[in-house]
Amino acid sequence: MELLTINNVWMMICTALVFFMHLGFSFLEIGLTRQKNTLNILFKNIFIITMGLLLYCLVGFNLMYPGFEEGTLGILGFAGFGLDAAAASDLTYNVGYTYWTDFLFQGMFAATAATIVSGAVAERIKIGPFMVFAILYVGLIYPIAGSWKWGGGFLQMLETPFYDFAGSTLVHSVGGWAAVVAVCLLGPRIGKFKKAKAQAIPGHNIPLAAAGVLILWLGWFGFNGGSVLSADPAITSLVLVTTCLAAASGGVVAALVSTIMYKNLDLTMFLNGILGGLVAITAGADVMGPTEAIVIGVIAGVVIVFAVALIDKVKLDDPVGAIAVHLVCGIWGTLAVGLLGDLAGLDQFLSQLIGIVSYAVVCIVSSFLILFVLKKTVGIRVSEIEELEGLDAHEHGMDAYPDFRLNEH
Amino acid sequence: MELLTINNVWMMICTALVFFMHLGFSFLEIGLTRQKNTLNILFKNIFIITMGLLLYCLVGFNLMYPGFEEGTLGILGFAGFGLDAAAASDLTYNVGYTYWTDFLFQGMFAATAATIVSGAVAERIKIGPFMVFAILYVGLIYPIAGSWKWGGGFLQMLETPFYDFAGSTLVHSVGGWAAVVAVCLLGPRIGKFKKAKAQAIPGHNIPLAAAGVLILWLGWFGFNGGSVLSADPAITSLVLVTTCLAAASGGVVAALVSTIMYKNLDLTMFLNGILGGLVAITAGADVMGPTEAIVIGVIAGVVIVFAVALIDKVKLDDPVGAIAVHLVCGIWGTLAVGLLGDLAGLDQFLSQLIGIVSYAVVCIVSSFLILFVLKKTVGIRVSEIEELEGLDAHEHGMDAYPDFRLNEH
Amino acid sequence: MELLTINNVWMMICTALVFFMHLGFSFLEIGLTRQKNTLNILFKNIFIITMGLLLYCLVGFNLMYPGFEEGTLGILGFAGFGLDAAAASDLTYNVGYTYWTDFLFQGMFAATAATIVSGAVAERIKIGPFMVFAILYVGLIYPIAGSWKWGGGFLQMLETPFYDFAGSTLVHSVGGWAAVVAVCLLGPRIGKFKKAKAQAIPGHNIPLAAAGVLILWLGWFGFNGGSVLSADPAITSLVLVTTCLAAASGGVVAALVSTIMYKNLDLTMFLNGILGGLVAITAGADVMGPTEAIVIGVIAGVVIVFAVALIDKVKLDDPVGAIAVHLVCGIWGTLAVGLLGDLAGLDQFLSQLIGIVSYAVVCIVSSFLILFVLKKTVGIRVSEIEELEGLDAHEHGMDAYPDFRLNEH
Repeated sequence: MELLTINNVWMMICTALVFFMHLGFSFLEIGLTRQKNTLNILFKNIFIITMGLLLYCLVGFNLMYPGFEEGTLGILGFAGFGLDAAAASDLTYNVGYTYWTDFLFQGMFAATAATIVSGAVAERIKIGPFMVFAILYVGLIYPIAGSWKWGGGFLQMLETPFYDFAGSTLVHSVGGWAAVVAVCLLGPRIGKFKKAKAQAIPGHNIPLAAAGVLILWLGWFGFNGGSVLSADPAITSLVLVTTCLAAASGGVVAALVSTIMYKNLDLTMFLNGILGGLVAITAGADVMGPTEAIVIGVIAGVVIVFAVALIDKVKLDDPVGAIAVHLVCGIWGTLAVGLLGDLAGLDQFLSQLIGIVSYAVVCIVSSFLILFVLKKTVGIRVSEIEELEGLDAHEHGMDAYPDFRLNEH
Repeated sequence: MELLTINNVWMMICTALVFFMHLGFSFLEIGLTRQKNTLNILFKNIFIITMGLLLYCLVGFNLMYPGFEEGTLGILGFAGFGLDAAAASDLTYNVGYTYWTDFLFQGMFAATAATIVSGAVAERIKIGPFMVFAILYVGLIYPIAGSWKWGGGFLQMLETPFYDFAGSTLVHSVGGWAAVVAVCLLGPRIGKFKKAKAQAIPGHNIPLAAAGVLILWLGWFGFNGGSVLSADPAITSLVLVTTCLAAASGGVVAALVSTIMYKNLDLTMFLNGILGGLVAITAGADVMGPTEAIVIGVIAGVVIVFAVALIDKVKLDDPVGAIAVHLVCGIWGTLAVGLLGDLAGLDQFLSQLIGIVSYAVVCIVSSFLILFVLKKTVGIRVSEIEELEGLDAHEHGMDAYPDFRLNEH
Repeated sequence: MELLTINNVWMMICTALVFFMHLGFSFLEIGLTRQKNTLNILFKNIFIITMGLLLYCLVGFNLMYPGFEEGTLGILGFAGFGLDAAAASDLTYNVGYTYWTDFLFQGMFAATAATIVSGAVAERIKIGPFMVFAILYVGLIYPIAGSWKWGGGFLQMLETPFYDFAGSTLVHSVGGWAAVVAVCLLGPRIGKFKKAKAQAIPGHNIPLAAAGVLILWLGWFGFNGGSVLSADPAITSLVLVTTCLAAASGGVVAALVSTIMYKNLDLTMFLNGILGGLVAITAGADVMGPTEAIVIGVIAGVVIVFAVALIDKVKLDDPVGAIAVHLVCGIWGTLAVGLLGDLAGLDQFLSQLIGIVSYAVVCIVSSFLILFVLKKTVGIRVSEIEELEGLDAHEHGMDAYPDFRLNEH
């Protein structure tokens, strides 16, 4: 009983920290885009966290943890609508947390995937269709895909189970793949690829972007720390160390590499390097030591600089670097579990590949279907005039900063 | 001993989270008002948290928890000035927390009530008289009124005791009633009711307002979670779930209703809906299930949209919507305890009414007395020129954003 | 085992809170300086936290806790490079925390010292040399100096050991002394001492500065609360109370004194008073009662107003008031341990003096050597044109707020 109480305290705190990441994402995304679309991004992100929780309560939790029975394929299960008051009153549910905490912690995770997409499609997506997409992606796709591993589905049933500690793939890549699909279907912002070359469209509030990254790092104490699913002192504290060291090394290396390449102390790249390190360590934060964590972060820091350049080169317009951070570093971190640390080995590496490919398929197909149907019916892109004048004025009839004089661009 | 240690850790964290709500309130209030009054609002809010803690140490704690003896009326008691070192050294004080934690958690609550008023009177109240009001309201009125229920006073002595888990009435309505009185005595800001119709006076920094709401939501993990007064795993985690579901449903419904009514995706209403849901669930967060929590949030979300319109209609100028959020939703949440959940029943409903009326009387009378005397002696409203040019320049001799070019209005 | 789990949960939370202080410092420093140097300050601060953690992993932790053997002088020891996996797997390492938590908590502290310097030298230091300084100061000087007390070195070996609970001297003065040296070697910003009198150079974003102080106060729950090195309920909760009361009284008194002296409700002084109270209580937060805490805060609040004026008078240009807050109040708090509370006495007072002088010597000498060599070789000050146009444009090729129209100054 006392052990449950301690564990549950830790899990509740981690839940609060993961919730707080939504402020981090919001700050990061508005900071790195133009002021004229600020309210729109905030509206989307606040929609995702509120609607996401309601959907997770209605169907998501029971899609993600359906209790696959033996002999089933482990692809799709559903334990019924709503929450289960009987399970909730049973304190032997799990020694690490109560039923309520379990639901809330996982619910906070669920919203994250769609928030990642929000950044990539910023400044040009119609908000109505985006909300439809978010509802389907958070309410159905994320939990079904999540059940394959965390719900005990087929990726967990592999002889060498796929390993993803806190969601480099299950959360970050799931958001990242949809970001790629959405960016392809939407096309770039007006002016992004003038003269066949990527033009920088500077973010309007870099202090908020930097604050967003520090808040996300703080939130990761809960994201990874809570994924231990108890307060086990040895594992939780190791996880915090590996998480922080990967973040630190990812940031420092991305800053260094980008300074060498572009002769500029680029704060945005520094920030993205930190996030890349955090995403990359997430898959194996509990099976790495400090040295492995630093290696993972260092490689993430290098990868992020080149990934951002490559995504520009192939003319994908991702205003906040979500694809490079969440997809590319998510894949790297997932593979790293097969290469470094306690589980490293060929079998594990192959399982990691199977997992990555499985999530790629379900995410690309499902997000394409949803977004393609939306594109062909109601349309997913705002009008040119709306894009130029800003989504805030057109969709929300308000300005983010009415007392300030602004530049047009 | 170990149980005390766990419980106390939880309570200290909740204390920190409630403290952090003061940043949430500050961001919300400055974000929804004009830049020219930013420093003034910050000064008021930081005054409230600092002076509030000192007053609570000096008299508040012992006014609120006087230890009413049997046979007393349970209306006013006082256990003496300052803190009690003897009680502090006794670790059998309570299994849920130490004496020190008890003081600090309750002290963080105390300041909240005055902060609610701060938002409603923003942009036109003289800071000196406001500080006098805040001292009396936080130092005397709030703790005395609080003693009626949480201190074991007459509302607790009712056959069916009045129920207010974490303060829909004791904190939020106590602030809200004073806000109504203050707004009536102050009058509207210049330009608010031109041409007999309410004019929108847009807030100058919506990202900070949105951040304020997310920080307040985070703080509510501690506000409601800590009101369990221990880390009891079943109750604390239920409370977090009901809190978050009410916030989510309040927000989504307020956004939906306001979009239907005004054909606009209004972020401010979305934010106020979240706050309304949070305030409403606060009275009964531990006696509701998830479904009841969602119902409470949904109704709060509807109520808030109409309350904001109504308050405009009766020409009360409440720049941040404090009355709609804290008073109207506080009343709704308090009544809901008699209508939904474990305690629902006619007796409870009547007790809830008695409680609501009791707090209405004491708050209206006391805040009227204080503010009326101040109005008739030193005055409570700044000069017209000061209001037009901004309180920052006149009271503080500084600008909030000196490097930015600003619009006049 | 359960006790370790509880204690470790508390220590992990405190670690997260201390980490979050880096956002507080960043907001405070950018808020109190001009917009044209915003990215530069953020870059420096994010460099310090990331590189600081890596350095603390590589050498700092083992310099700070070298395990001085009997008979050694207790001035310099080194337990080897990197972290110690064997110690990490031993859960009997300490009942208050695991090895990993120990490292991470102390690592978060280490970065703080250099961040303090960052504020004092803002708006004119070359970023390259500053990074070199930060590496040496965080990586070598801070941990070696820290070992003298917290690592069991000579100040701990005194008959009446020097006492510094959470680092008024070991952290704040260590940063503060280097700030003095750096400010002397750098000289004031252009325009600061025109006409032989200090000119106010207003900060560009006061809401962020205020947010920074509230975040720092929140972080101090972890900074002081975690310095108990366990979740001991009696001590941790006392420490939070003394910390908050000193912050509150420091703020209120600084606001009062500055209002009397300058006839102005100065928000910046209010904020600095809060910080001064926090810094001052840090040395003895666990050996004071509430009354002593308030006395310490009150004196800090008075001291800070005069210290800021004095530093201006002697023509030291410290844009954020770091020297007054961290050095002057740090010294006051350290002396206060000998004057007030459980340890008060002449012997203790003398030990406090010895400690203060020891840290003054090592910090002044080492930071002078580093910065003087840098000054004479690569130079430490940016060119006049860069200072006038802003470090963001020159060092980072970016603007912090490109969508806003700005005033030149």
